[in-house]
Amino acid sequence: MPAPVLADIREAARRIRPHVHRTPVFTCASLDHWLGARILLKCENLQKVGAFKIRGATNAVCSLGDDEAARGVATHSSGNHGQALALAARTRGIPAHVVMPHDVPAVKKAAVAGYGARVRYCEPSVRAREEALAALVAETGATVIHPYNDHRIIAGQGTAALELLEEHPDLDVIIAPVGGGGLLSGTAIAARALSPDIRILGAEPAGADDAIRSLAAGHIIPCAQPRTVADGLRGTLGSLTFPILREHVECILPAGEAAIVEAMRFVWERTKLIIEPSAAVPVAALRESPRTCAGLKVGIILSGGNVDLDHLPWVTETR
Amino acid sequence: MPAPVLADIREAARRIRPHVHRTPVFTCASLDHWLGARILLKCENLQKVGAFKIRGATNAVCSLGDDEAARGVATHSSGNHGQALALAARTRGIPAHVVMPHDVPAVKKAAVAGYGARVRYCEPSVRAREEALAALVAETGATVIHPYNDHRIIAGQGTAALELLEEHPDLDVIIAPVGGGGLLSGTAIAARALSPDIRILGAEPAGADDAIRSLAAGHIIPCAQPRTVADGLRGTLGSLTFPILREHVECILPAGEAAIVEAMRFVWERTKLIIEPSAAVPVAALRESPRTCAGLKVGIILSGGNVDLDHLPWVTETR
Repeated sequence: MPAPVLADIREAARRIRPHVHRTPVFTCASLDHWLGARILLKCENLQKVGAFKIRGATNAVCSLGDDEAARGVATHSSGNHGQALALAARTRGIPAHVVMPHDVPAVKKAAVAGYGARVRYCEPSVRAREEALAALVAETGATVIHPYNDHRIIAGQGTAALELLEEHPDLDVIIAPVGGGGLLSGTAIAARALSPDIRILGAEPAGADDAIRSLAAGHIIPCAQPRTVADGLRGTLGSLTFPILREHVECILPAGEAAIVEAMRFVWERTKLIIEPSAAVPVAALRESPRTCAGLKVGIILSGGNVDLDHLPWVTETR
Repeated sequence: MPAPVLADIREAARRIRPHVHRTPVFTCASLDHWLGARILLKCENLQKVGAFKIRGATNAVCSLGDDEAARGVATHSSGNHGQALALAARTRGIPAHVVMPHDVPAVKKAAVAGYGARVRYCEPSVRAREEALAALVAETGATVIHPYNDHRIIAGQGTAALELLEEHPDLDVIIAPVGGGGLLSGTAIAARALSPDIRILGAEPAGADDAIRSLAAGHIIPCAQPRTVADGLRGTLGSLTFPILREHVECILPAGEAAIVEAMRFVWERTKLIIEPSAAVPVAALRESPRTCAGLKVGIILSGGNVDLDHLPWVTETR
């Protein structure tokens, strides 16, 4: 199956429109000054479930045939993808099964369950969750929806960039954070098709820089021991996302941990928007590489806003 | 001088338009569910200086004659009005002098100075700040711009409700927080003129309920010992705001401290908007008085978003 093209992203946009928000684009003069560029923030933190993930999940769930859909969908993500899949399934009126380790924070358990998912707990190991997911699929016939290594997911995530470029077709640069690469892949496909000369950048925590190393090596290097506050970006590139990034992305900028926390706090204070650490990564990367985009018009996909307000990184970082 | 009328608010809107944001109106399904009403949030937290105060301050500064303006403006303020006056003065190219207690949050001190004001610190008492302000005026000839007991300020603050009602003329209710009453006065004048049948409510911390008691008594009762996290609402009604509220406001709802903190946190988590405690007061009051607006379409003026991120009330409230 070939990689998605712009037509797939437009089709995804049409499919998900009734179910997700068209998020606003924010600007902030002090952020422009801080980064030395004209910044447009695509506010996926204001999206349903608080993250862009609802775009891909909704596209995937709405793409299923009726018989397949009736057996439900399944994932082993306790984070934003798990919540998004749960809501997308509820919207279609089908079951969502979410496998998660029993030691996941209560707030995540509650969020996934709150969207109506059937939660199955497992031991906190990669092997245990994969076995639990396989057993669940054998029992129910549910379709596993991968968080990013899925063309329907990639096409759905690309709708955020589609909207941003519809409103601001003259961007010089577009930048998105990279974990497994679903958001950046969709962003890159949409941006390259709509704006052939646009520069497409990624941003990644220096403490989880598998995408930077993978692109340099020419093959996927797993994210072995991620050390970053940006917990949404600890994934490894997938077999579908890696070649898309390799084709379209100019480079992936690293962001240090202190810069991520500083950027997150700067955005909170100046824009009054709550963003999660992963969403601060592109801001931090631009702050640390100021010459990359100096004076340019830069679109940033602010990926999400789900934060544990009891454990803010500028409070806990010195633990 | 008679109280402002709609024409004065329209004139203020024309005057300040080049200098302030037309703020967006947010909705949030889970907030609607939580409050049992259809809620429209007028996001003055996204306004310049992070609060509605820039509206009144800009209107006042732009209303001065050239000679008067050249001598500068002055105020005593615990924060948002001081920042707003500083920015409004800088925009016009005149000096702003700000007297403030030395114990205000560091983030507010830095912001006032950052907008170019000349800051003079005083002891945290009403008498100390009034003496410091009088001395400053004697030295400089600056014009004192009161934070709320000033018709130019009241007319400027009314422009937020003007914008909200232009976009949503079918509101059943409009509600704003009350400290000195400038925002609620301007809101009431605009709303009553544009929508004769609208219900106009205020909201006030139960721990600083001087406006509730003043309206009940028929005369101004000072806010003697305010005990509230909503530090923007510790003022006493003024001679100009009291009669306006008395004429137009149906009632002022109280909000308890725990409810204010809970409402603030709910708005942060669900809307991803940073609001300050004062802005959470109308949300908290509606939560505590659920029958007041059940099922109605309610506009809330979210007054501001300036928060010290090192001292969030759900962390410090148990001190």
